[in-house]
Amino acid sequence: MISLDDVRSAAAVIAPHVVRTPLLPFGSGWLKPENLQPVGAFKLRGALNALARLEDRANGVVAYSSGNHAQAVAFAARLHGVPAAIVMPDNTPAVKVEATRALGAEVFIVGITERVERARALVAERGAALIPPFDHPDVIAGQGTIGLEVVEDLPGLDSVVVPMSGGGLISGVATAVKALRPDVRVIGAEPALAADIAESLRAGELVRWDPLRRARTVADALRDEPSELTWAHIREHVDDVITVSEDEVLAAVADLARSARLVAEPSGAVAVAAQAKLGRGVAVVSGGNVDPALLARLLAA
Amino acid sequence: MISLDDVRSAAAVIAPHVVRTPLLPFGSGWLKPENLQPVGAFKLRGALNALARLEDRANGVVAYSSGNHAQAVAFAARLHGVPAAIVMPDNTPAVKVEATRALGAEVFIVGITERVERARALVAERGAALIPPFDHPDVIAGQGTIGLEVVEDLPGLDSVVVPMSGGGLISGVATAVKALRPDVRVIGAEPALAADIAESLRAGELVRWDPLRRARTVADALRDEPSELTWAHIREHVDDVITVSEDEVLAAVADLARSARLVAEPSGAVAVAAQAKLGRGVAVVSGGNVDPALLARLLAA
Repeated sequence: MISLDDVRSAAAVIAPHVVRTPLLPFGSGWLKPENLQPVGAFKLRGALNALARLEDRANGVVAYSSGNHAQAVAFAARLHGVPAAIVMPDNTPAVKVEATRALGAEVFIVGITERVERARALVAERGAALIPPFDHPDVIAGQGTIGLEVVEDLPGLDSVVVPMSGGGLISGVATAVKALRPDVRVIGAEPALAADIAESLRAGELVRWDPLRRARTVADALRDEPSELTWAHIREHVDDVITVSEDEVLAAVADLARSARLVAEPSGAVAVAAQAKLGRGVAVVSGGNVDPALLARLLAA
Repeated sequence: MISLDDVRSAAAVIAPHVVRTPLLPFGSGWLKPENLQPVGAFKLRGALNALARLEDRANGVVAYSSGNHAQAVAFAARLHGVPAAIVMPDNTPAVKVEATRALGAEVFIVGITERVERARALVAERGAALIPPFDHPDVIAGQGTIGLEVVEDLPGLDSVVVPMSGGGLISGVATAVKALRPDVRVIGAEPALAADIAESLRAGELVRWDPLRRARTVADALRDEPSELTWAHIREHVDDVITVSEDEVLAAVADLARSARLVAEPSGAVAVAAQAKLGRGVAVVSGGNVDPALLARLLAA
């Protein structure tokens, strides 16, 4: 389990390279717009912290990701002048593949079930270091810096709503928030079509859903499942889960563009859809790498 | 002419009610996203400062505006618990009329040439106070707080690009920036179809364009012209003007949505279009109240 000190230490490491995102008033709550990070997602925080703490990165780094972690690792690697090899599943939106290549990374497109294997092969071939998308204490500590900022900026904070997939973001945020403000409720948000963590918390143990079942949601960055490490943090710190429908997610994407002037991807709007049901709190807008054609359809409707 | 002290004083007054917008890396420069203010535009800063400094506001406030100043005054009035009457020209985009009403203001729609007269009549009838959109020292000082923040956040600042219409925004920003950092270039941005200030600076005197000539641009919030007060600030402090085509403005709107995850209205993207030509500097994204159908068309293209 990571500690508040790990998160504070990560904050010092990443501060020069991330945007200190403000809290934006939104309805009866607030938004934490992590879609405004340079790669368009909170993932930059964890990737920067993990890469900065690597003891040996001379042979480069490897990551597997459906998108935002890919861009985050590519960005962090370029910043530190090391080569990055990114393995992406063949159902990744084109906009995310292109953005990763534009950051100077070498991209390998594989079938969704082969990505971990291919990433491990690259690590072995090259002597490179793997930066996992969520299953690593340094990655979790980096994401947790969002929790530090929210607590610092909003003395009246009563709840934080955080999207869940692999669980790295909520593990870090919950660790920071609960250490500083045990009275604040930390609430996970999941698409109903990928609500394995909601089911796990009800069952009191980690329940695994088939990847194809989780892949049904339009929230393409929320199709992962927790690791033992993130599940331990979630079980310890998360108070509740709110699940949302696909229509609610898409409505939140449109509402963010119209009322908050923010471009969010469906995964990035899941916590906002949950916040609408809760009626208060800070919602983390986790990413903004939406397919422009999808956003155009939602705005024209 | 306003002073740095006026701007600093405004900053203290408005700080509790405005978003402290961050600088976002963008291409080889930075963005100052004022579209993320509660009403979707920088105008909130000036309106809040002007309203807070009114000696007598018991009978309410009156404003005339094509949109963003209207919402700003309505927001500030609601915050201070005073009634607001807003006169809007009949070519105002519907989204801005609706947003102003939603903030609790009474809206009067008139022909574009009648708006000042109607506002003055309301002031006389009600004993209310007029808050002009730019021709007032307190409004200018409020907008200038953006300049303070940019200087504070970016020690390596070399230039600031600011859209110009009535000139309140650039008057305030230039006053703050030049007082603190005389070496920094303050550059105005105008649509070529409403480039009366560019022509005025070349001529060395205020050149007035017919309102119908200025009204050709898609940047509907940039169809005003300077007052004697704002012209005095512009002549003193502004180093240069970059003019942009309508296509460049619309391309900047699309680029902001795709690459910076920001929703901007055409007027709000004019400085970004100018920044693209300059190749550096901080561009003020002044507003985000775009017609959703227009943004949808630009994203689908």
